[in-house]
Amino acid sequence: MKFYVINASKVARETGMGSRINTILQTCFFAIAGILTKEDAIQKIKDAIKKTYAAKGDKVVLKNFEAVDKTLEHLEQIDYSKYKAGTIEIEKSVSDNAPDFVKNVLSKIITFEGDELPVSAFPVDASYPVGTTQYEKRNIAEEVPVWDADLCSQCGKCFLICPHAAIRCKVYPKEELANAPADFKHIAPIGKEFDKEKEAYTLQVTVEDCTGCNLCVEYCPITSKTDPNHKAINMQEQLPLRDTEIKNWDFFLSIPEIDRSRVNKNTVKGTQFLEPLFEFSGACSGCGETPYIKLLTQLYGDRMVVANATGCSSIYGGSLPTTPWTTNNEGHGPVWANSLFEDNAEFGLGIKLAFDKKLEIARAILEKNKDIIGESLVNELLNSDQSLESGIRKQRENINELRRRIASINTFEIKQLNIIADHLVKKSHWLIGGDGWAYDIGFGGLDHVLSTGENVNIIVLDTEVYSNTGGQKSKSTPIGASAKFSVNGKENSKKDLALQAIAHGNSYVAQIAMGANDVHAIKTIQEAEAFPGTSLVIAYSHCIAHGYDMAQGADQQVNAVKTGYWPLFRYNPLKPHGERFSLDSKEPSLPLKDFLYNETRFTSIIRQNEEHAASLLLQAEKGVSDRWERLLALKSL
Amino acid sequence: MKFYVINASKVARETGMGSRINTILQTCFFAIAGILTKEDAIQKIKDAIKKTYAAKGDKVVLKNFEAVDKTLEHLEQIDYSKYKAGTIEIEKSVSDNAPDFVKNVLSKIITFEGDELPVSAFPVDASYPVGTTQYEKRNIAEEVPVWDADLCSQCGKCFLICPHAAIRCKVYPKEELANAPADFKHIAPIGKEFDKEKEAYTLQVTVEDCTGCNLCVEYCPITSKTDPNHKAINMQEQLPLRDTEIKNWDFFLSIPEIDRSRVNKNTVKGTQFLEPLFEFSGACSGCGETPYIKLLTQLYGDRMVVANATGCSSIYGGSLPTTPWTTNNEGHGPVWANSLFEDNAEFGLGIKLAFDKKLEIARAILEKNKDIIGESLVNELLNSDQSLESGIRKQRENINELRRRIASINTFEIKQLNIIADHLVKKSHWLIGGDGWAYDIGFGGLDHVLSTGENVNIIVLDTEVYSNTGGQKSKSTPIGASAKFSVNGKENSKKDLALQAIAHGNSYVAQIAMGANDVHAIKTIQEAEAFPGTSLVIAYSHCIAHGYDMAQGADQQVNAVKTGYWPLFRYNPLKPHGERFSLDSKEPSLPLKDFLYNETRFTSIIRQNEEHAASLLLQAEKGVSDRWERLLALKSL
Repeated sequence: MKFYVINASKVARETGMGSRINTILQTCFFAIAGILTKEDAIQKIKDAIKKTYAAKGDKVVLKNFEAVDKTLEHLEQIDYSKYKAGTIEIEKSVSDNAPDFVKNVLSKIITFEGDELPVSAFPVDASYPVGTTQYEKRNIAEEVPVWDADLCSQCGKCFLICPHAAIRCKVYPKEELANAPADFKHIAPIGKEFDKEKEAYTLQVTVEDCTGCNLCVEYCPITSKTDPNHKAINMQEQLPLRDTEIKNWDFFLSIPEIDRSRVNKNTVKGTQFLEPLFEFSGACSGCGETPYIKLLTQLYGDRMVVANATGCSSIYGGSLPTTPWTTNNEGHGPVWANSLFEDNAEFGLGIKLAFDKKLEIARAILEKNKDIIGESLVNELLNSDQSLESGIRKQRENINELRRRIASINTFEIKQLNIIADHLVKKSHWLIGGDGWAYDIGFGGLDHVLSTGENVNIIVLDTEVYSNTGGQKSKSTPIGASAKFSVNGKENSKKDLALQAIAHGNSYVAQIAMGANDVHAIKTIQEAEAFPGTSLVIAYSHCIAHGYDMAQGADQQVNAVKTGYWPLFRYNPLKPHGERFSLDSKEPSLPLKDFLYNETRFTSIIRQNEEHAASLLLQAEKGVSDRWERLLALKSL
Repeated sequence: MKFYVINASKVARETGMGSRINTILQTCFFAIAGILTKEDAIQKIKDAIKKTYAAKGDKVVLKNFEAVDKTLEHLEQIDYSKYKAGTIEIEKSVSDNAPDFVKNVLSKIITFEGDELPVSAFPVDASYPVGTTQYEKRNIAEEVPVWDADLCSQCGKCFLICPHAAIRCKVYPKEELANAPADFKHIAPIGKEFDKEKEAYTLQVTVEDCTGCNLCVEYCPITSKTDPNHKAINMQEQLPLRDTEIKNWDFFLSIPEIDRSRVNKNTVKGTQFLEPLFEFSGACSGCGETPYIKLLTQLYGDRMVVANATGCSSIYGGSLPTTPWTTNNEGHGPVWANSLFEDNAEFGLGIKLAFDKKLEIARAILEKNKDIIGESLVNELLNSDQSLESGIRKQRENINELRRRIASINTFEIKQLNIIADHLVKKSHWLIGGDGWAYDIGFGGLDHVLSTGENVNIIVLDTEVYSNTGGQKSKSTPIGASAKFSVNGKENSKKDLALQAIAHGNSYVAQIAMGANDVHAIKTIQEAEAFPGTSLVIAYSHCIAHGYDMAQGADQQVNAVKTGYWPLFRYNPLKPHGERFSLDSKEPSLPLKDFLYNETRFTSIIRQNEEHAASLLLQAEKGVSDRWERLLALKSL
């Protein structure tokens, strides 16, 4: 047996490949496998690189060439005959504090030993634990963010934009610090809503779950006055920090969550004190979709009912063996289910109708059994105002009281009530999916749901391409973008899904871009959720399929809005005539190409055919101004 | 054996049931079957009537009661012991001039003897003859239209509106009359495009195929100055006319068709000289859909390629054993195929792409074989101008010449060319279906086709309800209408399919109502067909599901337009800015209820709950004015 090592990440960094090590490891394989001669193999790899990356430009090709050459320099054979066997074992696939089921069953699946599991290892009722990604400590980031407590304005933006819920903040009574680890950072909370004397603020990173995307640093609005390269959060090597931060994170988790009724839900800062119930998904580093989902779980998580379309969000949301969807410490969390690409809207509508029916039954049983249960409790349950967190908490307490009172009653109706009593808490129904679902495969159903006016909320995580299946064009793909089935640039425009939805006349319809205007995104989501009918929110989501460093994802969202490529707006049919349509972003002030030409999906067309690219750009520009005009026309509604 | 007779039609007429004999025949069955006592049976029938028709009002219930009572008076037992066997045989199911296959195979299926057919009766290549409804002489009309040649203005409207192509007109050289039957009517043609001296005009009814719907008489614009009940076409009893008119019709068919390039295709009169290739379908008497299909076949029939969605149009269009789709005397006719409810748009798009590919191959083979075929013929075939009928005729002649020249050449390419040469004639692609398809089940695909911009034409025969499957609501069903799944009145608005299509920005989109404005319908269809991209035409179609006498179908279309219920418009994205949207009907000038309350689908709600009906009417009125405003806003595009 021959044994080789290479620091592929170092080679990638030094040759400008960033975090991409695929070419380097491929080169290693062919260099040592002996299938071809080394020279022959290298030549064929370079030919393949030329073929694969030519469209992305000479610079990319040359970078890859250099990576291949450097690989050979850094690939080192180890003569292990000189070493004796050590005691270091392969790290466990799940952490020590994981529950038994995770340790004994899920970990086997994670390490590809699932075939060894007997049927008896699985629960007889097929129930499966949630929140299990927290035990897969992947440690994939070479560098992780480190908080500068003194510089930080406590705005919450780093956490809002974090795709993996790997940063969190809490405000808590100072006495909690009694048992804090020595290096646990904290500072006085900013803001008049907090007690600077009696409370502390901590921003904590879980370095084992961070993927190192850098979005938090790029999105941080605070720069040191003395050092322009230093922000309130900054990347540092993970390894030296790991042990300390594991302890800090564990301690951080032990600190109680804030009282939800204390926070201002219309601000980034406020919402970011709320516990997320979607943590450490397997989404790509820098994902532009997951921050929206995480935000939804912060706002509505313990009352959320989610129908999730097939696509990225179903894969990072719930593919075996682990799921990032989790519960709070009271055991409440989102209900989540994934159906097919082509029926998710119908699926979510069906769930909503079933929930309505159960609520109706529960209310009828309450009404009928006032004498047994007690009139005042029944009246409170039936007439509860659940518009605020305090009302929801009260309703939950009343349900607990109800359960106490009916525990020993054995009539059929009362037993039924016991099963469905939680439906008395107001639910927040969400239909989640990408553009492949919403614009294409599931559009017929989505349109149907819009026509019904039922009180469900639809969020489209719009990456403008079939991201999960490998980058095929969708009807959301913009003109001039390269995608599978339109590699030479899509010839027709992105479909105007919002206008199609507005055509129904009865739905709330909005377009947001968190990275461009986070307050707008937060407020719009809450407006949509509060709307007593169907709501559709189209959320711009940057994606690796766009071909640039995701650390710049939020900056690109700013450009998308400033160029008029992605206008922000809200349509609320319940508002008075003339005020229904609100155009929330300013008239385009930046040339369109200042957005488009930062992304390989657009620039690759220039390299293929400059003239064609110029013509597509012209059409795209016309499309932007045509659309702007259409939006202005909507203002008269 | 006991033998009874009843003139059910007479009872129906006398009791105000019109042509509905179901209650009468049901009463007969129970009166003589002896399952229940007569008194018991009658009581149960009346109970059932009450239950079924209560929602339609007391008048309907009483009419049915009266029909039941009168039935018993008219039901007569025949004592056949006094008669001897006669020689009259059951009439043949197909006419004597039918081809053998129709006589021997289809007729067996028509008379429910299909099980007796051996497999060998069917063609080995599974080919099936077209135009076979012409042999099913159903003779179902008690009264048929009779032409008053002297009063007639020759406008063509009676034929345009005829759902069954049972009226036709021709202009022809007078010498054709040499062998005319004695009673064959003709008169000098009106209009400077005809030669009054040398030509004759005939309007001929095929009384055996007429269904007696009365639409032609109602739609005829000419009334006698001396007798307000006499029009240029009037209903008379069929039986006394039958034999004469069979001979007249046969002779009429033998008269040559007019030269297509002579007629003005922008007028009703002109288009109605064109031969229809959709005749005598099994659609309901008075159908509002079939006149559109017939018109399409007159305009494009011999070059039409139709993808037909499931629904009424697929059933009357091509259910075994007969089809109304036919060919002209040169053997050219529409290509017609029916796929599923849920994929007809995709199906039609696929056919279009396949046709394009075949044309491309044919052109390439021509180009490559110029030397063999002859350069000038190839150039003519490749560069033909087929915008006019004359150009199309020339292309067909050139293809015939091509076939003569290549008949004896046996290369693979040339043989392939021979097979696909007809693709060199310009085709007219049509995707046909109802609102159940276009608004609902097939909408996802329809939307996809719109996004492609491919040159196909979509016509939606909008009856605002699932007509064929029995009257379920669709997303096209208007607010306040009673339909299955919304028997108490639909609570939400009709979907604005046109605006959803306009949102794509690249498609021609129009709304027409032939009965309200026939010239607009004719011109719009031709504009749509000529548009070099996707076109969508939404065509108002009155339907028995609306619950009124279909003879008033065209009048109701007038009301639909005058009340603003059904605005007429065209959107052409290729027109200059500011002129793309053309609102072609006038501002609403009639109260909405003057349209709605002529139809049982709306009035039945009043009888159920007057207050609710009033609230729905109010919402409907608001919907009309909201939509009008939206249309006005589109004018700025």
